[in-house]
Amino acid sequence: MPYSLSEIVSRFGGELLDDNGVAVAAVAPLDRAGPREIAFVSQPKYLRDVEASQAGALILPPEGRDSSRRPRIVTPNPYLYFARVSALLNPAPQPAPGIHPAASVHPGARVAASAAVAAGAVIGEGADIGERSIVGPNCVVGAHATLGDDCLLHANVTIYHHCALGNRVILHSGCVIGSDGFGLANEQGRWVKIPQVGRVLIGDDVEVGACTTIDRGALDDTVIEEGVKLDNLIQVAHNVRIGAHTAIAACTGIAGSAKIGRHCMIGGAAMIHGHIEIADRVRISTNTLITKSLTKPGTYTSALPFSEHGEWLRNAAHLRKLDKLAGRIKELEKRISELEGKK
Amino acid sequence: MPYSLSEIVSRFGGELLDDNGVAVAAVAPLDRAGPREIAFVSQPKYLRDVEASQAGALILPPEGRDSSRRPRIVTPNPYLYFARVSALLNPAPQPAPGIHPAASVHPGARVAASAAVAAGAVIGEGADIGERSIVGPNCVVGAHATLGDDCLLHANVTIYHHCALGNRVILHSGCVIGSDGFGLANEQGRWVKIPQVGRVLIGDDVEVGACTTIDRGALDDTVIEEGVKLDNLIQVAHNVRIGAHTAIAACTGIAGSAKIGRHCMIGGAAMIHGHIEIADRVRISTNTLITKSLTKPGTYTSALPFSEHGEWLRNAAHLRKLDKLAGRIKELEKRISELEGKK
Amino acid sequence: MPYSLSEIVSRFGGELLDDNGVAVAAVAPLDRAGPREIAFVSQPKYLRDVEASQAGALILPPEGRDSSRRPRIVTPNPYLYFARVSALLNPAPQPAPGIHPAASVHPGARVAASAAVAAGAVIGEGADIGERSIVGPNCVVGAHATLGDDCLLHANVTIYHHCALGNRVILHSGCVIGSDGFGLANEQGRWVKIPQVGRVLIGDDVEVGACTTIDRGALDDTVIEEGVKLDNLIQVAHNVRIGAHTAIAACTGIAGSAKIGRHCMIGGAAMIHGHIEIADRVRISTNTLITKSLTKPGTYTSALPFSEHGEWLRNAAHLRKLDKLAGRIKELEKRISELEGKK
Repeated sequence: MPYSLSEIVSRFGGELLDDNGVAVAAVAPLDRAGPREIAFVSQPKYLRDVEASQAGALILPPEGRDSSRRPRIVTPNPYLYFARVSALLNPAPQPAPGIHPAASVHPGARVAASAAVAAGAVIGEGADIGERSIVGPNCVVGAHATLGDDCLLHANVTIYHHCALGNRVILHSGCVIGSDGFGLANEQGRWVKIPQVGRVLIGDDVEVGACTTIDRGALDDTVIEEGVKLDNLIQVAHNVRIGAHTAIAACTGIAGSAKIGRHCMIGGAAMIHGHIEIADRVRISTNTLITKSLTKPGTYTSALPFSEHGEWLRNAAHLRKLDKLAGRIKELEKRISELEGKK
Repeated sequence: MPYSLSEIVSRFGGELLDDNGVAVAAVAPLDRAGPREIAFVSQPKYLRDVEASQAGALILPPEGRDSSRRPRIVTPNPYLYFARVSALLNPAPQPAPGIHPAASVHPGARVAASAAVAAGAVIGEGADIGERSIVGPNCVVGAHATLGDDCLLHANVTIYHHCALGNRVILHSGCVIGSDGFGLANEQGRWVKIPQVGRVLIGDDVEVGACTTIDRGALDDTVIEEGVKLDNLIQVAHNVRIGAHTAIAACTGIAGSAKIGRHCMIGGAAMIHGHIEIADRVRISTNTLITKSLTKPGTYTSALPFSEHGEWLRNAAHLRKLDKLAGRIKELEKRISELEGKK
Repeated sequence: MPYSLSEIVSRFGGELLDDNGVAVAAVAPLDRAGPREIAFVSQPKYLRDVEASQAGALILPPEGRDSSRRPRIVTPNPYLYFARVSALLNPAPQPAPGIHPAASVHPGARVAASAAVAAGAVIGEGADIGERSIVGPNCVVGAHATLGDDCLLHANVTIYHHCALGNRVILHSGCVIGSDGFGLANEQGRWVKIPQVGRVLIGDDVEVGACTTIDRGALDDTVIEEGVKLDNLIQVAHNVRIGAHTAIAACTGIAGSAKIGRHCMIGGAAMIHGHIEIADRVRISTNTLITKSLTKPGTYTSALPFSEHGEWLRNAAHLRKLDKLAGRIKELEKRISELEGKK
């Protein structure tokens, strides 16, 4: 359903300029937006592309206010504004409430009348599905697991027994919440399993990506605080706590009992050792291994720069002999000091 | 069903030598092939093992032509030839066409009469399943998603709404096609979700490994071109494009909007930054982080060589002080130049 | 159900001191255990926290024998003892035997009368489910796959055709056993699939984590020996063999045909090249890339230490010039030797 720019501004604010009554039905990138679509520029360097665009309307930053005479909304954060407009123009489809006949809901489970349970979903004994929550096709919600209101489980999600989700939690396909942590005791070379009796607790407004795994606690709970965003294929081990509003990119692993602060940003394929604490507002770069606690905000990195393979081979040989190289420098310093002393 | 060597040669070419009329029923490795099996040698160094083998027939490279008097097929690419023979001897089981009574197919979906939909599969409204395609048990095909002809979805695959597959696409269990990209705007420390309204488009003859995740585009589409082969546990972020006939090994991550060329080979656990371009025919080594565009074919690497742990500790200490080491070398060069000048 | 300490000691041994007849119903961490709970101390440094604990009973190492007058069990390995007690107090729920009406079991499959098959599970032709084994909701067991006795498949597990599990195997949600290995031959730039006709064989007492993928062999089998423990999101490629009682942490990848020894411990996000052999009792650190065979026990590491980002930038620049730095040192050594010779 199309919206006029004045309707949009009345919802989300911003300064509306040169409105011509256009109604926009979709968001689109600057280079292929058409006359019924709205595009945005968040970085000033792209303002030069505004003139060539066929977009019917624009969302621009203050410095782009006069870059066009087209209908436009000026706002300090065009990317955020675009997010709001896109959500308005692309409302998530809301399946009809009710339990699909091909779902299996245990008689001892409670499903809110406004919730939707799709074909093939299996809901265990004592589970509780809140108002307007959607359980997608072939999801499994274990015994006594609970979902708050307005949650969205895409297809093929698994939630183990007793785990608890807040409101507006989004779980993508293939993610697993509450699998056993990797807890093992060793008895003369053989591994003995430690029962994992904690839960996973997930706060409001959390989103978890596809095939991300979050293990239940061993004794205490694994906790994902409100507003955390996890990308795909992330491993969260038992007893981890991730602070509110932290965002973690794909392929990252967090070992057992690590405590991650609030408002952190963790790059892809980072690895965090167990039993360490990371302060609020820390940033960790892609491919970085964090081996000890970080007590101060800042950006932390460990990643070998890539090279053409032949060059890499020449340098890599020295990496394994750095200690010897350093020794040779020390020796040179000694010898040269002696020479200098002789003058 | 066994095939004679002459039948095989009539299908796939090659030079048949010393045929004794043997029919082979299976392929097997050289060291355990029996008289009714055919083995192959692709690397000349393994020709020395030919005599000890009990194989009933052999596939050999030209340089191995006279390494045996056994029935043998000589071909320039024995590994490729073996692939063809193995496919002939191991035809994929073709389930009977039709929709299993325990599948849930939306009345608004179209399933070709020659297609097979297994128990527990869920097919959404407006989805389209092409001729002879197989949807495995407990797969979920979202609304308006389309499969071309002769596709094979193994069990527990998820395809989100509106994604489109070409012909002969193979998807392995647990893979997720079309999950939301990791698109977030920040509003005073809280994350606001950017609706992901693009699709995933997958070309002909693509194969996707187990638990690999491919996110849908934010506005434009994520595109996997024809002939691409993806191993297991790979993350492909939103708006990535992977060029035709590129092969990517397991555990690799590709960040948003990266463009990978055609005929590339990317090693396991490589990480590719977002918004960069990689030329055709690039090779990237295992564990390598690519942080900027690669405009020329070649092999690129970044991986720290491993050592025994104690030795690693001694070297690693210097890694964090390389800048100081380099400064000490510069200082030494200055001092020695002064000494030399004094002569 | 609570157990008295004397019942516990009669099962698992240990020295019982100052028993007051307390019965414990749960295990709990030292800092929040209550009077009906039992806590443990495995590391002597935590003995100082014993007095402040409210635990009704304690499991202590010999050196902690006299650290408390509370009811306590003294044992050489408190962590192992705790594992045993926790298993006693937290028996896994045993679903009622039988096949749920919403499961789909092929008439040509065999399911032991004592086994349980949950809603949505699909069991293929010729599959065999052993005594007391549990197949969770929405699992798929392929044709001719076999499970021994007392196996536990959590929800949404996939086992491909012909794979075979021993007894007491635990598979977590989302894991995939028997997907095709990444076998490709190249024909003029296009990839031709090599049929993967081997199986996956899993020994007794193996546990496999969530979303871990184990590929079937190309010709021979992929083998996971008894007692192996695999964490989440691990990739095991075709024809790998993992020796008995080896434990592997999350996010690790093992390339094709690698042979891992027995009693190894492999850290998170390690990567193991294909076609290499790793001896028994090897330890590999987190994030370490193993590129060649390891013939001796020991710990092996390759991981760049992290730094604050600015410092990292200064050091990383030199990493790409190590060969030149080494050349400058060599040159300095030559010059100084000449100077010294002149004395």
